[in-house]
Amino acid sequence: MEIGFMGLGNMGMAMARSILKAGHKLTVYNRSPGPAKTLKAEGARIVPRPAALGHLPLVLSMLANDDAVSACVLGEEGLHSTLTRGSIHVSMSTIGLSLSRRMWDAHRAAGQHYVAAPVFGRPEAAARAALFVVAAGAAETLAKCQDAFSAIGQKTFVVGTEPPTANLIKLSGNFLLAAVIEGLSEAMALVEKAGVDRAQYVEILTSTLFAAPAYKTYGALLAQEVYEPAGFAVPLGLKDIRLTLAAAEEAQVPMPLASLIRDQLISALARGYEQLDWAVLGRVAQENAGIGQPRKSRS
Amino acid sequence: MEIGFMGLGNMGMAMARSILKAGHKLTVYNRSPGPAKTLKAEGARIVPRPAALGHLPLVLSMLANDDAVSACVLGEEGLHSTLTRGSIHVSMSTIGLSLSRRMWDAHRAAGQHYVAAPVFGRPEAAARAALFVVAAGAAETLAKCQDAFSAIGQKTFVVGTEPPTANLIKLSGNFLLAAVIEGLSEAMALVEKAGVDRAQYVEILTSTLFAAPAYKTYGALLAQEVYEPAGFAVPLGLKDIRLTLAAAEEAQVPMPLASLIRDQLISALARGYEQLDWAVLGRVAQENAGIGQPRKSRS
Amino acid sequence: MEIGFMGLGNMGMAMARSILKAGHKLTVYNRSPGPAKTLKAEGARIVPRPAALGHLPLVLSMLANDDAVSACVLGEEGLHSTLTRGSIHVSMSTIGLSLSRRMWDAHRAAGQHYVAAPVFGRPEAAARAALFVVAAGAAETLAKCQDAFSAIGQKTFVVGTEPPTANLIKLSGNFLLAAVIEGLSEAMALVEKAGVDRAQYVEILTSTLFAAPAYKTYGALLAQEVYEPAGFAVPLGLKDIRLTLAAAEEAQVPMPLASLIRDQLISALARGYEQLDWAVLGRVAQENAGIGQPRKSRS
Amino acid sequence: MEIGFMGLGNMGMAMARSILKAGHKLTVYNRSPGPAKTLKAEGARIVPRPAALGHLPLVLSMLANDDAVSACVLGEEGLHSTLTRGSIHVSMSTIGLSLSRRMWDAHRAAGQHYVAAPVFGRPEAAARAALFVVAAGAAETLAKCQDAFSAIGQKTFVVGTEPPTANLIKLSGNFLLAAVIEGLSEAMALVEKAGVDRAQYVEILTSTLFAAPAYKTYGALLAQEVYEPAGFAVPLGLKDIRLTLAAAEEAQVPMPLASLIRDQLISALARGYEQLDWAVLGRVAQENAGIGQPRKSRS
Repeated sequence: MEIGFMGLGNMGMAMARSILKAGHKLTVYNRSPGPAKTLKAEGARIVPRPAALGHLPLVLSMLANDDAVSACVLGEEGLHSTLTRGSIHVSMSTIGLSLSRRMWDAHRAAGQHYVAAPVFGRPEAAARAALFVVAAGAAETLAKCQDAFSAIGQKTFVVGTEPPTANLIKLSGNFLLAAVIEGLSEAMALVEKAGVDRAQYVEILTSTLFAAPAYKTYGALLAQEVYEPAGFAVPLGLKDIRLTLAAAEEAQVPMPLASLIRDQLISALARGYEQLDWAVLGRVAQENAGIGQPRKSRS
Repeated sequence: MEIGFMGLGNMGMAMARSILKAGHKLTVYNRSPGPAKTLKAEGARIVPRPAALGHLPLVLSMLANDDAVSACVLGEEGLHSTLTRGSIHVSMSTIGLSLSRRMWDAHRAAGQHYVAAPVFGRPEAAARAALFVVAAGAAETLAKCQDAFSAIGQKTFVVGTEPPTANLIKLSGNFLLAAVIEGLSEAMALVEKAGVDRAQYVEILTSTLFAAPAYKTYGALLAQEVYEPAGFAVPLGLKDIRLTLAAAEEAQVPMPLASLIRDQLISALARGYEQLDWAVLGRVAQENAGIGQPRKSRS
Repeated sequence: MEIGFMGLGNMGMAMARSILKAGHKLTVYNRSPGPAKTLKAEGARIVPRPAALGHLPLVLSMLANDDAVSACVLGEEGLHSTLTRGSIHVSMSTIGLSLSRRMWDAHRAAGQHYVAAPVFGRPEAAARAALFVVAAGAAETLAKCQDAFSAIGQKTFVVGTEPPTANLIKLSGNFLLAAVIEGLSEAMALVEKAGVDRAQYVEILTSTLFAAPAYKTYGALLAQEVYEPAGFAVPLGLKDIRLTLAAAEEAQVPMPLASLIRDQLISALARGYEQLDWAVLGRVAQENAGIGQPRKSRS
Repeated sequence: MEIGFMGLGNMGMAMARSILKAGHKLTVYNRSPGPAKTLKAEGARIVPRPAALGHLPLVLSMLANDDAVSACVLGEEGLHSTLTRGSIHVSMSTIGLSLSRRMWDAHRAAGQHYVAAPVFGRPEAAARAALFVVAAGAAETLAKCQDAFSAIGQKTFVVGTEPPTANLIKLSGNFLLAAVIEGLSEAMALVEKAGVDRAQYVEILTSTLFAAPAYKTYGALLAQEVYEPAGFAVPLGLKDIRLTLAAAEEAQVPMPLASLIRDQLISALARGYEQLDWAVLGRVAQENAGIGQPRKSRS
């Protein structure tokens, strides 16, 4: 099968490689040329513009954020401008519902097919082709995507026929990760003040009721208090919580825990932690509890 | 080894049985006679008062709440009044730090030994002797408890020499469970409004990043929306969050997520959900989002 | 002085009248013809498009929301398209900072002057020309607006030279009003359950430490539990809190109280209170506390 | 009329003086002798123990907190032990509902009368005999207190026949003050980042919708950023919020805003602000928004 791919960031590069390894022909577009060259050496074709992927029957995109997706798909030289009638665009990025809806509308109006299929898993999982794909779209269209999904992930969950549903589930999953971080941050500030070792505390949790990847990954970061290099930086986390809250407001669902997390992430930015992993909420909790460096008087 | 045991509730009964099965002699006290009789048929000796366990070298207690513990240990005919110098009381209940400190002081003043060793796990785990024991106390004393702990649990975590530390970790664990419930409740209200099936949503979460007992147990309850019979009723949950917040205030640790959970649990009580499992926060979230059946008047 | 005016809602109509009464010539634009006709009978000239006000030296706008302002000012037949170089547009609506910035930029680029001058006060105060005007813009430009401001309000506060500053202060004021409502709502649910009369409670507050218009206005609404007709409906309140939170996120200021209010207002919408005054947070608080009538099914 | 008085703190001293000035005979008890001596010079009689006031027909108490009230009234040499049948104890302190109930029960059991009559107003108002008295108790008993109330305050609100109701209203009032502080703190952090002068901002608020003593008092403190000497220190504020939340939990009323304030006050303590006025929440908000001194990296 001939597959197009846009977006060779940490995640996208690993996913594109998995597609190549699975024996598919791959044509890629990436804004900066470096990653594309690397992939060319591994057998991919390179194109200079998203629009140059339009003749392919199936194009996946894994771009950084709403702006990049909007530009590469709906922009002047975007995929949408050239995609053949009947061909499929699968958007795998974590984006907001309104952009997903705009793409759905635009592709439909042009006789093109659109699937939203965001993934769960960090770059390590992507490298092992062990992602979880959460897909929504027309059944017939999804059937044509399955080979590509199998090349990338260990399992595909089909969650409906309306693409934005898959985006919502992805956003809600990131919200739940942030809830894990906030919960652990508060709990660890509490037990730390009682003299409990942070690493032992995480070990207790993750070998009992909380033995899940989310707790292991973020528990380890919070125990070591090492927040850089960021696997997922504060501004990205804030963006996803913002998109979650926007979806919730539209659906008239109060989400006080999401609101709380939003404020903590904003405070993290205000404290100068923009470059750090969003697990730095652990440090925000420590500071709010007076743990750490003494602060100068301002009187 | 001859072991005393107080408190034959759901958890205590299963734990006492595990001790019998492991081949120890067991003498038990329980306020209501039914469970004690059952256990007598299985080989235990029964005594009518906590104080009647005072001659034993090791007495475990697994009582319902702070009041019961206080009465059975420090009360007029409590264990403390008769426990032999050098004998050990292991409190396994989930109690507040101040009561744990009072028992520690009282036992120490009488030349008795005191260990706090609350457990993680629900009654099913207790029945399989698969609990996790979180213990704190003097090393020498803990060594003498290890046989009893092994009979009850699959693993013991020693978290320090000061007993209240173990109580704090247990409380923080229950706080983290409540955080799981609140997170799931909000996320499920959100995706439900978009037409996602609650059960499928939980399956996606628990087969990916959130594959942990906490999410499986509470995800299932929230998906089925069946909150009775209560495994852990709202007032018990509220009690533990209250004790957590009291510990946090004493330690000067703000815990906004714990505060949020507290308010949701209070609202659950106000809505008439006193008899339900604390997973009913899922229904509170639904109602706040305008999902569901009209509510019956409580006026 | 010849003055243009756009937007004859409750507030705008009263303000336009004050300008007429102060002896100024007035030319007005309003989307729906009814209010414009009324004002014509009182001496105003009517124009059919915002662009038809462009020849006037000073144009005030008091439109419903960001969309209306954007359309009437920056849209195809908007004021911006025709306003004479050196003329002044004074935006008095409660709008977000980003729209205020866009107008500032657009007017400046066209050699036009821009002032933001939102007002504090409800329609009754507008009818008495007793509003408070919070204005920001170039000093020289503000000087030319002072006669108009004096016709409308009892006092003008100049808060800087950058127009968006005035919009921010207005938004923050609406946030503080919402904080008054939420505080009163919670307090009144509490005392009501103890049998205290809501009206007497408000009397105690407003004759002592809280003797301010904000408490008198909203205390009365909350005491009477009459939320319609809405002086300021839930969606308008939610919009202003949303704009406040957007400004706060941009400035990296966590505002947990604003977040809390946002969730309560969203829950009010979800409960079907879209048509009611935002003081209906008082009912939300009652319901969360189990007070009151059963709710009608919305399923 | 012969009146007894316990508790000569800032408030109590001013109130006792007002009673003397109104021409009543006054007998006082105070733990530390200094203030009592001062008052002796002004005509009061001094007694060394609360119990020594028991022969008087009317005894007012204005003590620092629940512990002091409990000791001076219900303790071994407390007023309750000697108060003549038919005599009246008026508790004017800000205390929790459970202590108020215990005193009510104890006095009633002894044939004594009990009134709760906390006051609104700071020491300056007390010095001018301009307090507001919020009283609850049997009508006949209240009638006998009116002369004393008139000596102290400018107005008395009778809020019911059950004394704890008055305590609840006082607590709720302090909650509303804290809500004012938190609201102002967040709003001022926001506008300050936009370059608005804090003092001008307060002037705008307090000359418009928020023209009330609560905003003037706390707005001035927040504008000047001077939090010492404390008029009402953080631990006292936290105590009152704690008592409010305890009353709310008992009545099953969720109070998310009170919970938020509680966490902010705890964070204030954790940051070392124990000695400062609770208006220091303004500084907490600034710090959370990154305003102020740079902080050292902890990496």
